[in-house]
Amino acid sequence: MHKYIVGLIRVLTITDEELLNVHGRIIERAYPELKVISKCIKNQPQGIYDSKTEKIAKPKIIELAKEFEREGVDAIIISCAADPGVKEVRERVSIPVIGAGSAASSLALAYGEKVGVLNLTEETPMVIKEILGDHLVAEDHPKGVTNTLDLMTELGKNAAINAAKRLKEKGVDVILLGCTGMSTIKIAPILEKRVEIPIIDPVIAAGTVALHSLKRLNIWGEKNEA
Amino acid sequence: MHKYIVGLIRVLTITDEELLNVHGRIIERAYPELKVISKCIKNQPQGIYDSKTEKIAKPKIIELAKEFEREGVDAIIISCAADPGVKEVRERVSIPVIGAGSAASSLALAYGEKVGVLNLTEETPMVIKEILGDHLVAEDHPKGVTNTLDLMTELGKNAAINAAKRLKEKGVDVILLGCTGMSTIKIAPILEKRVEIPIIDPVIAAGTVALHSLKRLNIWGEKNEA
Repeated sequence: MHKYIVGLIRVLTITDEELLNVHGRIIERAYPELKVISKCIKNQPQGIYDSKTEKIAKPKIIELAKEFEREGVDAIIISCAADPGVKEVRERVSIPVIGAGSAASSLALAYGEKVGVLNLTEETPMVIKEILGDHLVAEDHPKGVTNTLDLMTELGKNAAINAAKRLKEKGVDVILLGCTGMSTIKIAPILEKRVEIPIIDPVIAAGTVALHSLKRLNIWGEKNEA
Repeated sequence: MHKYIVGLIRVLTITDEELLNVHGRIIERAYPELKVISKCIKNQPQGIYDSKTEKIAKPKIIELAKEFEREGVDAIIISCAADPGVKEVRERVSIPVIGAGSAASSLALAYGEKVGVLNLTEETPMVIKEILGDHLVAEDHPKGVTNTLDLMTELGKNAAINAAKRLKEKGVDVILLGCTGMSTIKIAPILEKRVEIPIIDPVIAAGTVALHSLKRLNIWGEKNEA
């Protein structure tokens, strides 16, 4: 099977190799035609959590993206629901650039017009608000949770399930996870099983759009047969 | 390779077997994990072109969808950019139901916030307007073209290219094809080559969302390993 190579940018500093590759492995498992190489930005172990840390991160994201392009990857994923640097990188490289936030919020709209966003703690990322517009009908977050580690406890998991249930009670057709930290801990299937409406995981969504962007032009002509 | 089975509903009567299967073949070529079975509604060789013909078609679409579910398909695609019957079918079957119009318009938003719609002749389908909201910044159609056969001529092709260029001049980031007839004649790659912005083909988009909906739940647990 021909494999497309995707460069994935983690917007926090991760030294543990396995943790660095978690998002890539999720995407590879969903879409075996994609091989994902992950890199992370330096000197930001807390990642991006406000406009100042986003500003510091952006040039590093752009640098990693250029590096990926030079190395010949077929597409780039910026694996954060806030899409940091996505617009800037799109202006600077000539391969597809996918943001996890824009991918997830757009894909959510294929499932229903009333979308709920389940955030970790912080507000709904601006890019998600902008894409959803009036389709964003409810936002919530797990009570008593301050980071993804909390979510991995029994208490945290229940808090997330309850938040998702509150969103469903507000009549949403579909729930979008507003943080890729929730992808890391693989909470989407737990939530979907308990709440019984589609849960859109931002990392899988990014993989979906990456695959679409690579297939879009490559399935028509004879020379791409085989 | 495990294949998911997708039931695809054509909303016009097609007797030619090859023509009936064109959309399915496009999806299978893009996503080899999907096997597509196509069926079409009866007694509507002109398809759906106004509210009256849509009303006549809906019960037939619902019937075909139920038939597909009984036959055990994994997901259903309604292969029309107007999403006829999508909401009604979703209420009546328990497998994923994807509309080509909602799939394409949602996916377009992953590529950019300013979306142009290239229609065949008629207006932009309501479902596309509803999903795009303020992101729908321009609509156009090929001049002098009244059906997909016209589009296959040199004149028609040029008219489509010119319409796409007009959309690009209005500053759109991405162009969405507002009719699956344009998928049938495979005009997306021609337009993208000439206009150089992403062109979202509604049939491929429907396949993309179908695959996402089938993968979403099936990639996490151990029992789905292998």
